[in-house]
Amino acid sequence: MARLATRLTERFGIEHPIVSAPMALAAGGALAAAVTRAGGLGLIGGGYGDGDWLRTQYEAAGNMRTGCGFITWSLAKQPHLLGEVLAHRPAALMLSFGDPAPFAAEIAAAGIPLICQCQSIGHVRVALAAGASVIVAQGTEAGGHGHARATLPFVPEVADLLTRESPDTLLLAAGGIADGRGLAAALMLGADGVLVGTRFWASREALVHQNHQAAAIAATGDQTVRSSLPDIARRLDWPKPFDIRVGDNAFMAKWRGRDAELLAAAEIEGPAYREAFMAGDPDRAAAIYGEAAGLITDVPPAAEIVARMVAEAAEQLRRGAGIVAEG
Amino acid sequence: MARLATRLTERFGIEHPIVSAPMALAAGGALAAAVTRAGGLGLIGGGYGDGDWLRTQYEAAGNMRTGCGFITWSLAKQPHLLGEVLAHRPAALMLSFGDPAPFAAEIAAAGIPLICQCQSIGHVRVALAAGASVIVAQGTEAGGHGHARATLPFVPEVADLLTRESPDTLLLAAGGIADGRGLAAALMLGADGVLVGTRFWASREALVHQNHQAAAIAATGDQTVRSSLPDIARRLDWPKPFDIRVGDNAFMAKWRGRDAELLAAAEIEGPAYREAFMAGDPDRAAAIYGEAAGLITDVPPAAEIVARMVAEAAEQLRRGAGIVAEG
Repeated sequence: MARLATRLTERFGIEHPIVSAPMALAAGGALAAAVTRAGGLGLIGGGYGDGDWLRTQYEAAGNMRTGCGFITWSLAKQPHLLGEVLAHRPAALMLSFGDPAPFAAEIAAAGIPLICQCQSIGHVRVALAAGASVIVAQGTEAGGHGHARATLPFVPEVADLLTRESPDTLLLAAGGIADGRGLAAALMLGADGVLVGTRFWASREALVHQNHQAAAIAATGDQTVRSSLPDIARRLDWPKPFDIRVGDNAFMAKWRGRDAELLAAAEIEGPAYREAFMAGDPDRAAAIYGEAAGLITDVPPAAEIVARMVAEAAEQLRRGAGIVAEG
Repeated sequence: MARLATRLTERFGIEHPIVSAPMALAAGGALAAAVTRAGGLGLIGGGYGDGDWLRTQYEAAGNMRTGCGFITWSLAKQPHLLGEVLAHRPAALMLSFGDPAPFAAEIAAAGIPLICQCQSIGHVRVALAAGASVIVAQGTEAGGHGHARATLPFVPEVADLLTRESPDTLLLAAGGIADGRGLAAALMLGADGVLVGTRFWASREALVHQNHQAAAIAATGDQTVRSSLPDIARRLDWPKPFDIRVGDNAFMAKWRGRDAELLAAAEIEGPAYREAFMAGDPDRAAAIYGEAAGLITDVPPAAEIVARMVAEAAEQLRRGAGIVAEG
């Protein structure tokens, strides 16, 4: 099997430059461990922060080396969870959506690499100031929370900034990458590797209802939308400018443009939404996937996803060199 | 100098898989001719359709082989312009934003390849039904009019559709591509070439006010926004779902969220907007560029843009093959 050797694989001692996204509640220990076992690096989705859930997932990961990610603004409400995770000696600690500075010293003192997910050039500057070892440049096509920049032009702009101001900081591309073509493209854009969400969300090991996975497989990439409605329904007080990309469905159609009404009705709608989500109801709650759903047709084991991505990227990169002719 | 040989270069008999976007009013004959002269294919921006402007630009292009593009819904209001352009024997006729079917027979009868720019999978199906020879998969990061899909996941999804249903149809990637990294990435995603707007908009030959180009150079890619405000101010009745990406500035901030108010005030605001735009006023009208502005630092001749893109893409593609190691 081919390997793809980049600064990321060298720095982290892994085989392939593929990191699985720490998707809140969906990326448990089994998924993270499977990605690492396959030669990538798996991240457990610490998400909003639930100590019991995290302990269960660390048990599921067993002795496999994994990293962990948190939603920064939510971690700030229960900062003790950071110490609990650092005690597991994660391969990396990833922070997304909020200022990483308050946590940077504790992470650095533990000797753990800090990965910061960024949605704008401004975020990158904040992450560098906090001492990030790895920047994730996340495009708007990503599933789940994010913002406005698109992956293709965002990644090289961040690469240029890092080259100028922080050349030892690594760069991962995220958003829309679900196969070897996306991986090869990310490497061409100047990334050292990729952070992959939706593709691993639709894996055997992900903690995702099979009805949601089936909805993503049935969807084209046209059928997702960025919105605040799912967060309003879940009564999650997300800070600006973040919203969430989900599959477009009956729930989204019902409430489109009626954010204030949904907020006012949250006492009743909130529990109904959560119940529908947990039951995998395809209409009354939104499944969380990105535009890459249009590239996904099955729910294989995570190891097969890694192997396919690497093989296809290697084939594309070899073919790419053949496009170049001396004039 | 290296060449990049793809199905596009072969089919159109050009040196490099780079097509300049037919940007309304900005892509005149001088720009299109310069791009063709440099080994790409230049398209004149027929835009909303102005017979006098088109005749002037065809004179400026001289005998150089170029193509031409129209805004489909606007061409429908003065369909005779299509015949005038076809009489010039364009290398290709590109239609964007609307149903190409009513024009497809006339273009086919003239033996001219039809390029259809698409913003969704649904658009691609309409374009194939109209007999398009080339599909442009345009991402939301593009400057000017467009819609919601992002280039990186949209291009491979369209590539898969073409492989299944219309394998002889060529594919161009558009949106966010301004350098050789973007070009190399597009080729990895399965495109046969790229359609480049903003980078050529910021060229010596473009019919663009230098203040607007200076604004794009000063901006990061974070500082653009999709909106209907510029179209409302210009009293252009754009159909859904299209809106326009422009640089974020004082005009955009002033009217944000006030579409209806601007529409109501269009009698006064419209002429003021047009005057400010023509004068290159950086505050009272919006300059039309995409997220790729964050990758642009100068205003070189178009030939230099082509040469740089090809050299950098060739370097990236050669380097990419070196990333692959046999395990």
